[in-house]
Amino acid sequence: MLRKESPIAKLGHIAAHTPDLEESIWFFCDVLGFQLTEQTGNVAHLRGLRDWEHHTLSLIESGQTGVDHIAFRTTSQEELDDLAEQLERNGDDVTRVGPDEETGQGEAIRVEKFGHPYEFYYDVEKPDAPEGKQSGLKNRVYGEHLGNRIAPRRIDHAHVQDSVSPAHAAWLHEELGFQLNEQYRMDDGELWGWWFSVTPLPHDIAVHRLAGDEPSMFDHVSFHLDSLNDLWEAANMLAEYGIEPDGGPGKHAITSANFLYVSDPASDLCIEFFAGPGYLNFEPDWETIEWTEKDIGGETSHQWIGAGSGWEGLAYSSE
Amino acid sequence: MLRKESPIAKLGHIAAHTPDLEESIWFFCDVLGFQLTEQTGNVAHLRGLRDWEHHTLSLIESGQTGVDHIAFRTTSQEELDDLAEQLERNGDDVTRVGPDEETGQGEAIRVEKFGHPYEFYYDVEKPDAPEGKQSGLKNRVYGEHLGNRIAPRRIDHAHVQDSVSPAHAAWLHEELGFQLNEQYRMDDGELWGWWFSVTPLPHDIAVHRLAGDEPSMFDHVSFHLDSLNDLWEAANMLAEYGIEPDGGPGKHAITSANFLYVSDPASDLCIEFFAGPGYLNFEPDWETIEWTEKDIGGETSHQWIGAGSGWEGLAYSSE
Amino acid sequence: MLRKESPIAKLGHIAAHTPDLEESIWFFCDVLGFQLTEQTGNVAHLRGLRDWEHHTLSLIESGQTGVDHIAFRTTSQEELDDLAEQLERNGDDVTRVGPDEETGQGEAIRVEKFGHPYEFYYDVEKPDAPEGKQSGLKNRVYGEHLGNRIAPRRIDHAHVQDSVSPAHAAWLHEELGFQLNEQYRMDDGELWGWWFSVTPLPHDIAVHRLAGDEPSMFDHVSFHLDSLNDLWEAANMLAEYGIEPDGGPGKHAITSANFLYVSDPASDLCIEFFAGPGYLNFEPDWETIEWTEKDIGGETSHQWIGAGSGWEGLAYSSE
Amino acid sequence: MLRKESPIAKLGHIAAHTPDLEESIWFFCDVLGFQLTEQTGNVAHLRGLRDWEHHTLSLIESGQTGVDHIAFRTTSQEELDDLAEQLERNGDDVTRVGPDEETGQGEAIRVEKFGHPYEFYYDVEKPDAPEGKQSGLKNRVYGEHLGNRIAPRRIDHAHVQDSVSPAHAAWLHEELGFQLNEQYRMDDGELWGWWFSVTPLPHDIAVHRLAGDEPSMFDHVSFHLDSLNDLWEAANMLAEYGIEPDGGPGKHAITSANFLYVSDPASDLCIEFFAGPGYLNFEPDWETIEWTEKDIGGETSHQWIGAGSGWEGLAYSSE
Repeated sequence: MLRKESPIAKLGHIAAHTPDLEESIWFFCDVLGFQLTEQTGNVAHLRGLRDWEHHTLSLIESGQTGVDHIAFRTTSQEELDDLAEQLERNGDDVTRVGPDEETGQGEAIRVEKFGHPYEFYYDVEKPDAPEGKQSGLKNRVYGEHLGNRIAPRRIDHAHVQDSVSPAHAAWLHEELGFQLNEQYRMDDGELWGWWFSVTPLPHDIAVHRLAGDEPSMFDHVSFHLDSLNDLWEAANMLAEYGIEPDGGPGKHAITSANFLYVSDPASDLCIEFFAGPGYLNFEPDWETIEWTEKDIGGETSHQWIGAGSGWEGLAYSSE
Repeated sequence: MLRKESPIAKLGHIAAHTPDLEESIWFFCDVLGFQLTEQTGNVAHLRGLRDWEHHTLSLIESGQTGVDHIAFRTTSQEELDDLAEQLERNGDDVTRVGPDEETGQGEAIRVEKFGHPYEFYYDVEKPDAPEGKQSGLKNRVYGEHLGNRIAPRRIDHAHVQDSVSPAHAAWLHEELGFQLNEQYRMDDGELWGWWFSVTPLPHDIAVHRLAGDEPSMFDHVSFHLDSLNDLWEAANMLAEYGIEPDGGPGKHAITSANFLYVSDPASDLCIEFFAGPGYLNFEPDWETIEWTEKDIGGETSHQWIGAGSGWEGLAYSSE
Repeated sequence: MLRKESPIAKLGHIAAHTPDLEESIWFFCDVLGFQLTEQTGNVAHLRGLRDWEHHTLSLIESGQTGVDHIAFRTTSQEELDDLAEQLERNGDDVTRVGPDEETGQGEAIRVEKFGHPYEFYYDVEKPDAPEGKQSGLKNRVYGEHLGNRIAPRRIDHAHVQDSVSPAHAAWLHEELGFQLNEQYRMDDGELWGWWFSVTPLPHDIAVHRLAGDEPSMFDHVSFHLDSLNDLWEAANMLAEYGIEPDGGPGKHAITSANFLYVSDPASDLCIEFFAGPGYLNFEPDWETIEWTEKDIGGETSHQWIGAGSGWEGLAYSSE
Repeated sequence: MLRKESPIAKLGHIAAHTPDLEESIWFFCDVLGFQLTEQTGNVAHLRGLRDWEHHTLSLIESGQTGVDHIAFRTTSQEELDDLAEQLERNGDDVTRVGPDEETGQGEAIRVEKFGHPYEFYYDVEKPDAPEGKQSGLKNRVYGEHLGNRIAPRRIDHAHVQDSVSPAHAAWLHEELGFQLNEQYRMDDGELWGWWFSVTPLPHDIAVHRLAGDEPSMFDHVSFHLDSLNDLWEAANMLAEYGIEPDGGPGKHAITSANFLYVSDPASDLCIEFFAGPGYLNFEPDWETIEWTEKDIGGETSHQWIGAGSGWEGLAYSSE
């Protein structure tokens, strides 16, 4: 499945609920090193040091947990309008979000697909870093010398799971124009995982298959670090705070990227730190790489290097 | 100058002349760690460990030095055909390259623009690494454990200079659809440098201004390394071989990337090793960053970190 | 237990048996990047890139596996002679090793203590790297640009286990003058691990307690790498060769150093790669750091970062 | 000149004058990441994250600049007493420093030798990090996750210059028992530099020759960072603050260590950041490495990698 003309430019942000905004801000900003762009009422807007948009991670204090929406930015306002029309034409229930509803963002549309709350937008603010936190480098948002020893740089990808993932994957490809870079096929002949992108990243969104009776779920949002050293510092940071990682540090076989997973104690939102290299895929004629259980379920495990996480490996292969 | 619909997918390769192919192969493969894909007659085809295409650097033994062509890959065969027509329509002298003329590559077109020999192609072979040099990771071309301590991974960008660079820059933007990510304006009000891309890289090609009487020239081709450690190993490698770098290790202000320059003693072709992070630019509404002499010609120099190179700095600012 | 006047200068080398010398050489030299100094008959003498002595790891082809001797270098020939006398005075059965018995080494003495085969020597050859493998840096043995992507630099420490470790530890301190840098005390009040040094390293030798009916054993010898990147490359190397590490990459709480364990498939000798920082201990009045189960057996585990190994953790705490 | 029995355990600290303590504290703590142990009156006591002693860098506000004393710690109180006697026996004017005169330190002695103000002490406080800044690792002083992106870890060495350096070097060896690890001989046959240690570090103190009419001077004190990444972050930090480094980042030929030099704008005290590897020298029979102008003054310069500093290279070789 090659890349098609896609209305999508990039993954924009994830908005998640938290029962304790203060504790979530402590975890994401004080521990992990995210920057707080703006806090408005019960919503905190965060981003990485190199994120230009107003927010790439929003935390909404409410009585619940879970993801509020997964937001992709379109390549233009026209593409957003066309996408809204296209979705409605296909019978989707499209919710219009007014320009004042989400701080820092213009009008948007939302649609629930396969149990996942998608948002699409084009218009967004790109605020400068506050006075005193700016960089002397004009191509930097924040002065990175002020970052902590982790310093997440930019949003990388999202990862979702559901029991209807073949249909979900087809929709991402057919309707949204995502290219399928890698996939994982189980011994029963069925696909178990799809890694999709509209950018040269190994994936902007991945979909994994759940068993038939499990509800659709958001698994994690990933932020990119600059180096293996930063990833190791993140693991050290967590150990110092007595917070156990969900997995890693390690290196994935699929995507080839180094990882560390950790969940916010307050909201239970799982973050993956992704530290290069992975790969950049500039090929206009990419052929989807297929992995099988034999490739990564055998002696050299699904985990290319290091400690796995709960959702990795063959625990899922029995469905 | 925003990104437009572009027929170009990526920088493909650089072909350069060398008076001594054996010595050039020693330098690029034995010293710098490039992989030799294939040698056919007087041409050696090289690539980085993570380059999928047949070659990203070709060395042609001849009585001369200098670059033979700068090759960009189009997004499709149709785009290549359309581009050929468009160029001819504009009065350019387009040379057709037959599918058997350049090893590993199908038909292509060549055109000299502003004194630079451009090639465009779509059809290309993507050979596997030879038996015994493949990776267990399916998303890798070569097993990177077999790389030397530098291990160039992939072609990154090209850099050219000429005295007609404003017109050249306009052509890259208007005709080829490159986006202008960053530019450098001198105190006399004239632009001195342009950093263009069709990908999220900070640039796929940069153009610098020469004084009016200087001939157009190819400055360097850049290959990407994974880490600062690899860049440092490259500098160590050169010191061990008694080869003086042309500049670096250092960090550019423009592009924010770490660099090391070195020229092949045989061909005098200059290579820049580029080691992250720089930045990836996924913004559909990027506003060109403009740098001035005041920004980078003052106390904190054009060089953000470390040792400069001949073409850097204000030596060029007097024209 | 402070450092005393010690006759010991440093850990010198480990000599181990292997049933298949050729395969062991493949593993240590081709895979892990050790240098082969000299092969004499059934013995291969290896060292790291920055080891000055003739060998820091010897592999002896024989019908068996296991360690032949653990060799410490004394600070002088006189100290060696005095040590021999002292051991005999204490009733130890001291074996004299003639100057021609071990290639590259002068006369030595051997004594079995607590089930471990110790050797002490002073006189040793320090051969240059072979022509073409030397460094332009006079303070380097091998040109490190010729190392593979792991490049073990120097021997670091040895680790042994036995059921009489309290007596063993007392002997190392009282008779050999080792300083006890760190120790691990179990909830039953008994010590379980001792980290000893005569140098500023966190340890030159560690001793762990085995249950009463288990025979004394050699656990691993550790070699130092320069950086976390090298450690990661080691893990990648092993994955490419389909060799599963025994543990890691991770970071120890005790010693604070980063680690990766792997065993030679032929000899079963376990190597630990140790990549900084750990610490250097220059204090003349160091107070032994004591760790308890509460410190490192709880939520933040014995492993400070990453994947453990079989011999780590509380599996041993039940004795 | 082999290592002799030495009364010296390690370099302890440097005390320097500053005309503006507040600005010096800003530079060392806020910019460079040193920790402030205690400020008493006009003296600020600083240390690195892994320094156990009360201070490794003291800043004294006074009307002047320059170094107040270079302090070495002895291996015991007896050695300190013996050293005092020995110096007096040799006719030196030994000043006794009472236990209350220098915060955090017991009694000490001071003596001016060859124009340099030396201090020797044994008794010293080793305060814990303040509540909330401690590490979960018992072998760490400060939680390193709280360090900035440079995080100097421990004092490494001092570097002094004078016109009587041959006599000075002889005194360091003969009287204090320092071992001469490396030396630099000019084409005129005279030695120009001496690198001395009592520890396995490449040097604890270096001495360089000045021309006959130049006054003795303190050149720099060096602090150790963990990695090349930290060194690069230090360079980035300085660029962000608009402070030009005195040299680097680069790699020395002598000592093989990576470096960055920068001076405190207020006190003009020069700091060298030293980031591994260099080497550790455990050899009891080390032979001094001699470098000549031919070795490091030629095509591959004194600087093995990168940008030099004012005091490096052959500018000094003309005396």
